[in-house]
Order: sequence, then structure tokens, then C-alpha cells
Amino acid sequence: MNKHLGDRSVKFEQPVWIIGKGSVAGQEEARGPLRECFDLIAEDGLLGEKTFEKAEKRLFAMAVQRALEGAGCSPGDMDFLVGEDLLNQIISASYNARDLSIPYFGIYGACSSMAESLTLGAMMVDGGFAGKVLCATSSHFATAERQFRFPLELGTPQTPTAQNTVTGAGATILSATPAYGSRCYLSGATVGTVVDMGITDANNMGAAMAGAALETIGTHLEDFKRTPKDYDAIVTGDLGTFGTELLLDMAKRCGIDIERVHRDCGVMIFEGVEGKKCGGSGCGCGGSVLNGYFLRSLEEGKMKRILFVATGALLSTTSVQQGESIPGVAHGVVIERREA
Amino acid sequence: MNKHLGDRSVKFEQPVWIIGKGSVAGQEEARGPLRECFDLIAEDGLLGEKTFEKAEKRLFAMAVQRALEGAGCSPGDMDFLVGEDLLNQIISASYNARDLSIPYFGIYGACSSMAESLTLGAMMVDGGFAGKVLCATSSHFATAERQFRFPLELGTPQTPTAQNTVTGAGATILSATPAYGSRCYLSGATVGTVVDMGITDANNMGAAMAGAALETIGTHLEDFKRTPKDYDAIVTGDLGTFGTELLLDMAKRCGIDIERVHRDCGVMIFEGVEGKKCGGSGCGCGGSVLNGYFLRSLEEGKMKRILFVATGALLSTTSVQQGESIPGVAHGVVIERREA
Repeated sequence: MNKHLGDRSVKFEQPVWIIGKGSVAGQEEARGPLRECFDLIAEDGLLGEKTFEKAEKRLFAMAVQRALEGAGCSPGDMDFLVGEDLLNQIISASYNARDLSIPYFGIYGACSSMAESLTLGAMMVDGGFAGKVLCATSSHFATAERQFRFPLELGTPQTPTAQNTVTGAGATILSATPAYGSRCYLSGATVGTVVDMGITDANNMGAAMAGAALETIGTHLEDFKRTPKDYDAIVTGDLGTFGTELLLDMAKRCGIDIERVHRDCGVMIFEGVEGKKCGGSGCGCGGSVLNGYFLRSLEEGKMKRILFVATGALLSTTSVQQGESIPGVAHGVVIERREA
Repeated sequence: MNKHLGDRSVKFEQPVWIIGKGSVAGQEEARGPLRECFDLIAEDGLLGEKTFEKAEKRLFAMAVQRALEGAGCSPGDMDFLVGEDLLNQIISASYNARDLSIPYFGIYGACSSMAESLTLGAMMVDGGFAGKVLCATSSHFATAERQFRFPLELGTPQTPTAQNTVTGAGATILSATPAYGSRCYLSGATVGTVVDMGITDANNMGAAMAGAALETIGTHLEDFKRTPKDYDAIVTGDLGTFGTELLLDMAKRCGIDIERVHRDCGVMIFEGVEGKKCGGSGCGCGGSVLNGYFLRSLEEGKMKRILFVATGALLSTTSVQQGESIPGVAHGVVIERREA
């Protein structure tokens, strides 16, 4: 059977069950309205480590640990780990892969990773190549600022469009068979192309990603022959307030009215928090809000079907200095609730 | 059917056909014994571009173009692109994904990428999610030295264990159905875990990867219930001369005698070339030698079955400065020849 649907979408023949989930957020993120949704809060940015990079590695480990506990599994029960983070050479994911000793696929799609890993993981499960796959991602405000912009120690002021990289992590365990009480499953995915809006400002990631988000959402609805009404929420990862405005405006011009169902993890996580007007970003943003808020809402029956579109800005400090623009990519996965 | 075999291996139900291949090498690489094997030689390191990063992007594009031509395909015929390179945020792959407009999975496994992308691509094809998948990777001596060690302009002398990052690229097109004259296909894969040998010297990548290579080869033979004699070649990506010595020594101690069938792309590419005693490394090393030499040997009937184990050292300049060691990862794919 060919499960390839349309030009860019796939549907899964069997439900790919979500049997475990973990979400971790930092202190700043816990000041927002989602505090109660996260499994764990890291009250200190260093988490007792000597460097922020080592702290981020711990965030990743905490989310994974929580997901494994929830699924009643040990690392040895996982067939594969699909992991990513924002740091060069994805060190948070790779050092965790070493410690967990799970066969490992490292991926890189910037902040689109939570959806990229779920898409690949679901293909492995539905394709019969794995029984259980662990998908995880993380980001940290201090490590990302240092790598992509300025070290925090410099005290550089933020520009008006700059989002805050979320200190957080998310982990999801996919399985061919449901666990006791499993309600959520993946039913399909739409894989993104790299879309370039010509943005060259490293502090305007929302704009760099909005075009990719729109392309993936539009293609998804077309491939699956659905309308926004078929979803309780169409969730973008981290467009932030400015990127969200852009997305909704462009979508309207294209005749796709998603305003009523659209939610953005980057907007949600810092809603009403002082000094975070533009919202959050980073792999840990979509990762923690998906696992902390949306999967919970599906489990509790508040939602029945969502499209989770994690959005990534492929920012490189080297290529930007060489006059290249910052393209974006967005991957979408359909997550549904099955009644008992 | 569960195609998951053993703890870390998968077998493909149907042959995953290789219908196109492209290999590009630089001037230094063309001084070696494999010159005639490569499809294209880039005589100038800048390839007419203003920066080495832009030149590497061109290498990637050239390999892809050649593979597409060989398969008689256009980019639009590809369902997915699985791409990687060594640069931060995998910019060579990502900018090519933008230009090609193929739905894109970015991955990162350092120099293990050619095998990681083939494994993922073959799962997509055999799982029924794609008809055709393009897998590609690249590296460039000047961009890698600048990013991981010192810019060439400094004229820093090499240490005795330092390998030369290969300027080159490789691309392979996988397909559910054979093209006219197709001979080679993927039949299985073994996914690597991250193995840490405790190496902290950024100029000793071979040692950092040898343990991962051994673990993957050993697991592979166990999972598939085969011996080294079942292969015409067990090929590692880029251990170089020193890493190869280590691998063969460790393998012997473990009772796995691969000496007679073992080949290393990093050793082969610079064999006899002055000043390149430790051999080559980089994604482009395994990528160009697999597509230029080994797939050709299989097509011509000189070999019938190989195990291609691309090896990656997960080197991060940040984590090494923070006292972390450099772990390795290796993924293996089985490529076979079918008689007409």
C-alpha cells in the first residue's frame, strides 16, 4: 500500500500511539499561564551545572526521564531515539543519546524538530521498523543567545521583534500498540519544504518562519482534503506575536481562514509575562507546550484533533554574514484522540 | 510484519533500489587513486564563489544534479530529500533544499550522515511513505577547518593524527521500483548508538569513531546472523589510517576478523598522496567514495554485497572546551547487487 498522500503528506495505516510524554520548562516560562501544565519546572537556569550547555543537556534528560516513567518504560525498551536541539552539532541530544544508549538518529530542523522527529518516528513505527520510538528536543535561552546572537553577559538590549528562546524540553514516546489508558495517536503528517522570505535579521525569526508555516498548513489541508474546521487547533511552534500576525494575514489573503483555530506555542507560553511581548521560540517551546498543554488537552477530551506545525528558522551566523537570508521550514503532524 | 530485527537492525521487505548516484571531489582528492571514479572534479576550492561555504553548497548541488541526471529525474520527482553536512545548522543541505524545493528532512550525525540518510530514506521507501528519496551530503576542507579547528589563513601545522576533511559530496536516489538497468539495492540497516572512547583531542577523530564503528559492525553481524565472509567489503566512512588500525586491533580482540574485507574510504581516497598520511574525513569522504567507487563496483559486478558503515565524530568546539569528550556514532547499511 502506498501511504504517500499528495505531494508532501503521508498518512499512517495504523494509529501511532503516544504512550509517554514529558515537558520541562524554566523559571521564566513558569511565570506564564502554562505553569500548571508542565511536568517539571527548572527553577534555576544552571540546574546545578557549571555551564548553560550542560544545563540544557539536563533539561533534555529530565523530559526524557519523565516520558519514560509515564510509559512505564526503561531506555532499553526504546528501539530508536530521534533527537535534536538548537546547539551546534546538536550536543544536548547527542550526549543524551550516549547516556541513554538507545540507537540514535540525530536530526536538525531548528525549532521544527519536535514535528520532524514525530514524523520520522511515526514512519518507523507505522512502517514496521520499530515498536517504540522516543522523540525529544530541548532549547535554553542562555545557550541559544550566546550561539546565535550575543552572550547574556554583554547585556545587549533586545530589538522590538526579538523573541525569547524558551528554556525547556519536550519528549514523546510513540508506540505501535497502545498502553493502558492511551488516548492520543498520530494519524498523518505533512513534510515541509524550505521557504525563504528574504529575512536577514537574526532578531526577526517569526517573519522568517511564517511563510513556511503557511505553506505547510495550506498543503496539509489540500492533501488531506480538510478545512480548518476539521481541527480543534492548528498549532504553530514558535512564530511569536509578530510572526503570528504575519501568518494570519498571509493566510487570509490566500483564502485560508485559520484565525479561529490557530494557536502559537510561542505566544501562549509567555502570554502576559512582562518583558516577553514578542513571545517565545526554540525547539523547547513547541516541545514543552505540545507535551505539556496540547497532549494533555487531547487526553482530557477538551480537543479531538489538532495539527501541530513546528516551525524552524534555519539561522546560521556564518551564512548571514555572507549575505544569505534566513529560510524557514515547518513540519506538521496530525494528533487525534480516540474515545475508550 | 515486523521488520525490526534484533535490537538495532532493520531489514527491508522489498529491495530499495538505487536508481541514481552522484559523486564530486576536490582537486586534492583527485590526486589520489580514486580520481577516475568520481563523476565530477572541482578543480578550484572556491568553485567560482566568494566564500568556501558557498563553494560547499555548490558541491552538494553538483552531486545532486548528477544523481538526478543519472536517474532521469527532476527535483519534482523526489518525494523527500534527506540531507546533511558538517556545517553549523547544516547550511549546505538546507540552502540546497530551498533551491530544490523538495520536502526536506535535515539530519545531523556528523560524518555518519551518508548512512543515516540512506537508512531513513530506505525506511520511507520500504514503509510505503515515498516512491523516491534523495539522500545527499557534503563537506569541504576549508569550511570544516575554520569551524572545528583553525582558519586555513593561520597556517597552523597539523598534528600527527589529524585527518584531512574531504572536499566532496555524494548523492544517492532511492526508489521503490528499479529503473532500467538498476543493479544495486539496499536490503537492511543497523542503527548506531553513541559510543564514547573518552577522546578529547579534536585532531584525533579516527580514535573517537573507531569504537562506534566496531559496535555497529559487531551488532550488525549478530543481528543478521552473518560473518565478515558474507561481505565483499565492510566499508567504514572515514576512520583514516590511525582509526583503521585501532578498529582492526579492537575487532581482533573481540574475535571479529574483518581485516581481509575491511576498507576505509578515508584511507582509500588519499592513498599515496603526499601530506595526507592520516587519510581523509568528513561527510563528503564516505559520500563521494560510496557513490563514486563502491556503487560502481557493485554495478560492474566486481562486488555482490557490502556493508557501508559511515562513521561520525560528534565534535563540538563548545563542549570540548567544557571538558566533555568527543563521542562517535556509526550507522551501517547493506547494499547488494542483483543479477539481471
